[in-house]
Amino acid sequence: MSVFILLNCKTYDEGIGTKAVDLAKACLEVSESSGIQIAIAPQTADLYRVSSAVEIPVFAQHVDTVGAGSFTGHAYVKTIAFAGACGSLINHSEKRINLADIEKAVSLLKENKMTSVVCTNNVATTAAAAVFMPDFVAIEPPELIGSGIPVSKADPEIVTGSVEAAQKINPNVKVLCGAGISKGEDLKAAMDLGAKGVLLASGIVKAKDPKAALYDLVSLV
Amino acid sequence: MSVFILLNCKTYDEGIGTKAVDLAKACLEVSESSGIQIAIAPQTADLYRVSSAVEIPVFAQHVDTVGAGSFTGHAYVKTIAFAGACGSLINHSEKRINLADIEKAVSLLKENKMTSVVCTNNVATTAAAAVFMPDFVAIEPPELIGSGIPVSKADPEIVTGSVEAAQKINPNVKVLCGAGISKGEDLKAAMDLGAKGVLLASGIVKAKDPKAALYDLVSLV
Amino acid sequence: MSVFILLNCKTYDEGIGTKAVDLAKACLEVSESSGIQIAIAPQTADLYRVSSAVEIPVFAQHVDTVGAGSFTGHAYVKTIAFAGACGSLINHSEKRINLADIEKAVSLLKENKMTSVVCTNNVATTAAAAVFMPDFVAIEPPELIGSGIPVSKADPEIVTGSVEAAQKINPNVKVLCGAGISKGEDLKAAMDLGAKGVLLASGIVKAKDPKAALYDLVSLV
Amino acid sequence: MSVFILLNCKTYDEGIGTKAVDLAKACLEVSESSGIQIAIAPQTADLYRVSSAVEIPVFAQHVDTVGAGSFTGHAYVKTIAFAGACGSLINHSEKRINLADIEKAVSLLKENKMTSVVCTNNVATTAAAAVFMPDFVAIEPPELIGSGIPVSKADPEIVTGSVEAAQKINPNVKVLCGAGISKGEDLKAAMDLGAKGVLLASGIVKAKDPKAALYDLVSLV
Repeated sequence: MSVFILLNCKTYDEGIGTKAVDLAKACLEVSESSGIQIAIAPQTADLYRVSSAVEIPVFAQHVDTVGAGSFTGHAYVKTIAFAGACGSLINHSEKRINLADIEKAVSLLKENKMTSVVCTNNVATTAAAAVFMPDFVAIEPPELIGSGIPVSKADPEIVTGSVEAAQKINPNVKVLCGAGISKGEDLKAAMDLGAKGVLLASGIVKAKDPKAALYDLVSLV
Repeated sequence: MSVFILLNCKTYDEGIGTKAVDLAKACLEVSESSGIQIAIAPQTADLYRVSSAVEIPVFAQHVDTVGAGSFTGHAYVKTIAFAGACGSLINHSEKRINLADIEKAVSLLKENKMTSVVCTNNVATTAAAAVFMPDFVAIEPPELIGSGIPVSKADPEIVTGSVEAAQKINPNVKVLCGAGISKGEDLKAAMDLGAKGVLLASGIVKAKDPKAALYDLVSLV
Repeated sequence: MSVFILLNCKTYDEGIGTKAVDLAKACLEVSESSGIQIAIAPQTADLYRVSSAVEIPVFAQHVDTVGAGSFTGHAYVKTIAFAGACGSLINHSEKRINLADIEKAVSLLKENKMTSVVCTNNVATTAAAAVFMPDFVAIEPPELIGSGIPVSKADPEIVTGSVEAAQKINPNVKVLCGAGISKGEDLKAAMDLGAKGVLLASGIVKAKDPKAALYDLVSLV
Repeated sequence: MSVFILLNCKTYDEGIGTKAVDLAKACLEVSESSGIQIAIAPQTADLYRVSSAVEIPVFAQHVDTVGAGSFTGHAYVKTIAFAGACGSLINHSEKRINLADIEKAVSLLKENKMTSVVCTNNVATTAAAAVFMPDFVAIEPPELIGSGIPVSKADPEIVTGSVEAAQKINPNVKVLCGAGISKGEDLKAAMDLGAKGVLLASGIVKAKDPKAALYDLVSLV
């Protein structure tokens, strides 16, 4: 059973610059030790620093749908690829984009052989996102983000419902479970509900010992 | 007379990844040769790569006003600083932000000892931006951006008016002249109109020989 | 065969205030004469004026997803309903909203027994929008809006593809054909391609004689 | 001493449709009885209903900067004028717009002989907004909106600072005091601090007896 863990550094002070590199190193060690795939999503400004320093999959937190041209302040897909990103989050609840842009972002990532993870907030939006055939849809009820209450406990139906809805649209779209995930039991519960992995952030990034927290995370799968 | 040139790489394919580094090297050479200060604003994902490779002032194209915390896909001021940015564009016409955020972005850059360049579209908005006491206000009539028609020729009054308006609000705020600038005569005209430098992009980034274009740019001042 | 025509007044000077009422009267006359259902979407500020004056279905051009509370400058669903709207456009290409808000807007309209018309830009986004089970999805390739070139001629596959994709997701979701529609042959072509009606604007609103244009529009179905 | 009171209905259920008309009638009675100018800002969809029914100044809560043309879901300045608005809020903290649009919105209102009220969040943004010479700047610290704690008590310096800053930029720009205002003592305190009136919402709209609350509001000036 393959499992995918994606660690979002957000803008936590514990996850920027050299600390993002440290987190990436911890991810690599735990990934190699456990055999479980762990990727990290630092801020755009840290993509190159992290990807140059550590051999793990690095994701962008956001990608804009602009092409080459007269655009200032955007995350152009080619630039994040050159900076070492092998994929990107799309439509995170903290960076929502419109429907046409979600579709275009997934297409741009595919064209560039990158992995797409579209974030959604409920079963219906999971199904809609699945139509675009991203690699992953990450279901994250916004009210549980950063709460410490795992979605797998608070609202297991939203996970099973999302898995079922995505499957029905396209069996190749895998569902990640986000929001409130931090422990081994949370990951196990998510997998038991049909998810193929988790998207998480503060539970690891702000842990006193992130590496220990990662070891705990993978301990039950 | 001190002159400041800021080169915005936008999302031009000629200004990303290793090409952004090459542009930065050209900027450095021309700056050292001419004694004129030249800075470069690559995309966020290229900040670290460029600042690590070349010893010139590197600016971000945009900075968000979020702090440390649960924010995904944003350009956090500390992260761009750690990535080597010594300043940032704010409110570029291709990335406009609201009034409260402009004020906050200027403050955040000041707190972090970074240089702020607020972009504006006419004399009135230049005066309003000057209230926040950024280091620079860059006046760029949107209709001239990328046109090849220098604002100093097409609309000299907007430059003199902006210089006068900014001076009246705060004599320490310097005005840059943007939009359509690419040649030595454009820079000279801008300086003659009271500007302290220029913000430019395609005229250099997309030039067949960017270094030659930079040498031409500084040839008359 | 039931046909639905929705006339979007946009911000054309020919479609505001008393002129919006005149357009609504023309719609009513042509609708009664032809037996074809015609609805009008004036600006939010004209909803009450038009709905009070003319007995035809009146749609809002946009609805926000805010509830009752501390929100300023929004189109609250209850208020547009009280103002006489029986439905609303959602996600028009000139007013795009994010995925979560599209889903919520459709739900809010359903809760208030109002008709939802989600606008989309291609086959994939049509399929995604159909997941939310709105009453209609209006496919409008942005490049054809206001072009005078009917989508049914320029890109018939986008219409048939949208009809097929929506059907597959949910057979109850009807597809409208937008962009460039103005004549009877355009409506007929749209119906022949499987659409259940059209969303149109400038072709009628800016016509020298809007009523005559409407009579022409319905002449072939 | 002239005083200006502007009542923002927001999206409160107590301030929409016929209830907006009732509030407007209460405003009119208290205005006539006290000699103090009271205006009301209902939602866009209620502008025509309220302005047709009651002879008091009616403001829009927001105005877009689009002109006549292919724009859907926007509040076009001419349409809100035709619907009876004699002015508009601009840049409310619940509907912030960018710097260029604030400048343009003030200009558009002036061209249409309408009153402009630009909302700001601190002394610096008040000064910046004053540059555009709107009729009023309404200072509203976002953290006090809806709090019931009047800004005149919680942070009197922000009011005196705003008055002073606006005066320095342009003596004709009047400052309104917003956020947490509901009682006669709040209005008096605001005037004592140099404000020319107040912008308020929930304190009146959600009061058990809005008319009595309005009578109390004007009782000390």
